[in-house]
Amino acid sequence: MPIFLNALAPDFEAAFQNLLNAKREDSPDVDAVVAEIIADVRSRGDAAVIDLTTKFDRITLTPDSLRITAEEIADAMDEVSSEDKAALELAATRIRAYHARQLPEDAEWTDDAGATLGWRWTPVSAAGLYVPGGLASYPSSVLMNAIPAKVAGVERLAMVVPTPDGILNPLVLMAAHIAGVDEIYRIGGAQAVAALAYGTDTIAPVDKITGPGNAFVAAAKRRVFGKVGIDMIAGPSEILVIADGDNDPDWIALDLLSQAEHDESAQSILITTDAAFGQAVTQAVEKRLETLERRAIAGPSWRDFGAIITVPDLDAAAALSNRIAPEHLELCVADPDGLSAKITHAGAIFLGQWTPEAIGDYIGGPNHVLPTARSARFSSGLSVLDFMKRTTLARMTPDALRAIGPAAERLATSESLEAHGLSVTARLDRLNR
Amino acid sequence: MPIFLNALAPDFEAAFQNLLNAKREDSPDVDAVVAEIIADVRSRGDAAVIDLTTKFDRITLTPDSLRITAEEIADAMDEVSSEDKAALELAATRIRAYHARQLPEDAEWTDDAGATLGWRWTPVSAAGLYVPGGLASYPSSVLMNAIPAKVAGVERLAMVVPTPDGILNPLVLMAAHIAGVDEIYRIGGAQAVAALAYGTDTIAPVDKITGPGNAFVAAAKRRVFGKVGIDMIAGPSEILVIADGDNDPDWIALDLLSQAEHDESAQSILITTDAAFGQAVTQAVEKRLETLERRAIAGPSWRDFGAIITVPDLDAAAALSNRIAPEHLELCVADPDGLSAKITHAGAIFLGQWTPEAIGDYIGGPNHVLPTARSARFSSGLSVLDFMKRTTLARMTPDALRAIGPAAERLATSESLEAHGLSVTARLDRLNR
Repeated sequence: MPIFLNALAPDFEAAFQNLLNAKREDSPDVDAVVAEIIADVRSRGDAAVIDLTTKFDRITLTPDSLRITAEEIADAMDEVSSEDKAALELAATRIRAYHARQLPEDAEWTDDAGATLGWRWTPVSAAGLYVPGGLASYPSSVLMNAIPAKVAGVERLAMVVPTPDGILNPLVLMAAHIAGVDEIYRIGGAQAVAALAYGTDTIAPVDKITGPGNAFVAAAKRRVFGKVGIDMIAGPSEILVIADGDNDPDWIALDLLSQAEHDESAQSILITTDAAFGQAVTQAVEKRLETLERRAIAGPSWRDFGAIITVPDLDAAAALSNRIAPEHLELCVADPDGLSAKITHAGAIFLGQWTPEAIGDYIGGPNHVLPTARSARFSSGLSVLDFMKRTTLARMTPDALRAIGPAAERLATSESLEAHGLSVTARLDRLNR
Repeated sequence: MPIFLNALAPDFEAAFQNLLNAKREDSPDVDAVVAEIIADVRSRGDAAVIDLTTKFDRITLTPDSLRITAEEIADAMDEVSSEDKAALELAATRIRAYHARQLPEDAEWTDDAGATLGWRWTPVSAAGLYVPGGLASYPSSVLMNAIPAKVAGVERLAMVVPTPDGILNPLVLMAAHIAGVDEIYRIGGAQAVAALAYGTDTIAPVDKITGPGNAFVAAAKRRVFGKVGIDMIAGPSEILVIADGDNDPDWIALDLLSQAEHDESAQSILITTDAAFGQAVTQAVEKRLETLERRAIAGPSWRDFGAIITVPDLDAAAALSNRIAPEHLELCVADPDGLSAKITHAGAIFLGQWTPEAIGDYIGGPNHVLPTARSARFSSGLSVLDFMKRTTLARMTPDALRAIGPAAERLATSESLEAHGLSVTARLDRLNR
């Protein structure tokens, strides 16, 4: 059974704290194994990648067959139905349009002292995209990672995807093609992350690696961080729905289950001002769980980590939501914009009852790679900015140096950094101050 | 002796590769010790912090004396000269003005399908700033970390600074006061990072931790990453100067030494189109090293890691610079803006010979916390954005759901995520499509 909490109950605070602190995931400690794999790839390159791929994916490769060929991609895409292709293309178009608006602007201005200041944004040159194999190999995630990189202007986007027993996923290859991925390698695990970070004879190194993966991939990304940039380390998915009593319980039940079906460690929470509505949603969830294809996953997630919290009003709902800092937040209330204005920490907000979270997973436009495990307190979903970096600019004139140089000399002296000060002094001396 | 390279020499590529890959820093492996310290602070809170501070800083504290009082801060600030105070205030004003321009804009629009999309930026609620003790305790770094946080709108900014033997640094406290730091604790090391990340009875936890530190601090930041956000892990400082022959060798020598004096592992590189000028700079460096206060640091840095590279033209200089991806880049050439346009990877660019890098360390306005060790390929200097996060927004109408919902159903089916699809289907059924 999910837990039922009432914000007005005397023991609520302790119970809510338990909910916040509950550990939903036990990541196996694979760090030592991953360290060995990375060292092996660094020293033996392609040979190590090939040996590890034989071991884990049961396929025998050569350096020449690491990369999936254009012909293989074309053949696989022939298997995709025209309806699926059209859906992927519509999604790509909408995701591209949303992310194009994120392109940041350069700036340059001259201030009162005569100093010209500013910044300039440039794309990362080469990015690597990790795509899991098997059940968690989602074409939608390929779009969500690859399109922001391409909108940012990344010239070379290399994708890795394991193909256990050699089986290619046509939809994943179609999504990569639509998104403009430049190279695709049939490798996975820590060895693929190491190959992207350090390069091999066949695979040129990249500057940034994004994309989800299992514990081995996550550990490898942590280890190569610094050598390359990485995106966040994603935890199990979460949804928080804030709903008043004026909703269809079945709709809300399905929204809760759409996260629960991802993973037994996923978490679905409903906060409602209407206790009876909360009960109705629970019943609707149980009814849907009788027939849902992934009930063996969604059921345990809901029963172990689901929660229904009754609050006296929507202000109380917003306050609790901000403490949860949810990955996905649905506001199924009469005035979703008004409630949204009170939300300070959330990865993505879905406004109103006509906006199920699944729209955001596929087709809305915003990114579905979002901060989990309360990290929306300090981080954002994937965006074009993750594939760009900013160079700051400064230009002094002799007059500007006269105006502000003496303060720099003073501060350098106070920090005992003599050469810092002298580099200003030498120039000011030339100007005779 | 620094190394001398000529880009036209037959063995140049190999020598340049060596320069790029040279390991300048041997970080001691303190991870096991740090893990113990963090576990101790998590289980014993204030008591652990107090014990560790007694051990490392030789002072005896109680929970009540962890925080530096307003009176202590006021007394310390009385020791600061009016000239130093004025210099810090000018620096703060200029840094604030620069960073205020970084405040990002919210967006909202309605697209052809009738979907309202957008995003909203919000500040991190609480941030922690680590300030080293001893020699590396720079008031300028307090300004550079604290001001972007306050410009972002961070409500609570807690600073930690170790005070070995109980000695307070008046300039650091003055800088914190000017920048608007809200709380200051006299603790340091991994125990301070753990206290900020997990909280104790006395110190409330924060959401993000920034600021430089030694190997223990860096290891602690890596370990608490995920529980809180962190900034980059900074390596030794670097400068690259691109100069033509029309410069004063002494100015350029001082610019190179202003990084070399930071740290024996710092690196200073000159790329010049004029071999004779390169020689003149070397001589000027040696002359300055005879008298420089920090010659015991700057000398080894220059001799072990310094480099002078002669190139045939400025295009070649830009190409090498982009492979180095320097933290600081000075363009001391006739047309610095023209050369700047060819730079794709650099933390900060200083344009023209009147802009010594030291201006950027103190008073220019841009941040001096910048990506080191070639990480400018994929990351940026500290900014207001590091203390904010973006929530994406989406709102469907019935018509919008009719337009794009079917594609979401299709993609959910292709990914075998039935509840995702049903959450759309249930709503479309109500509309009778």
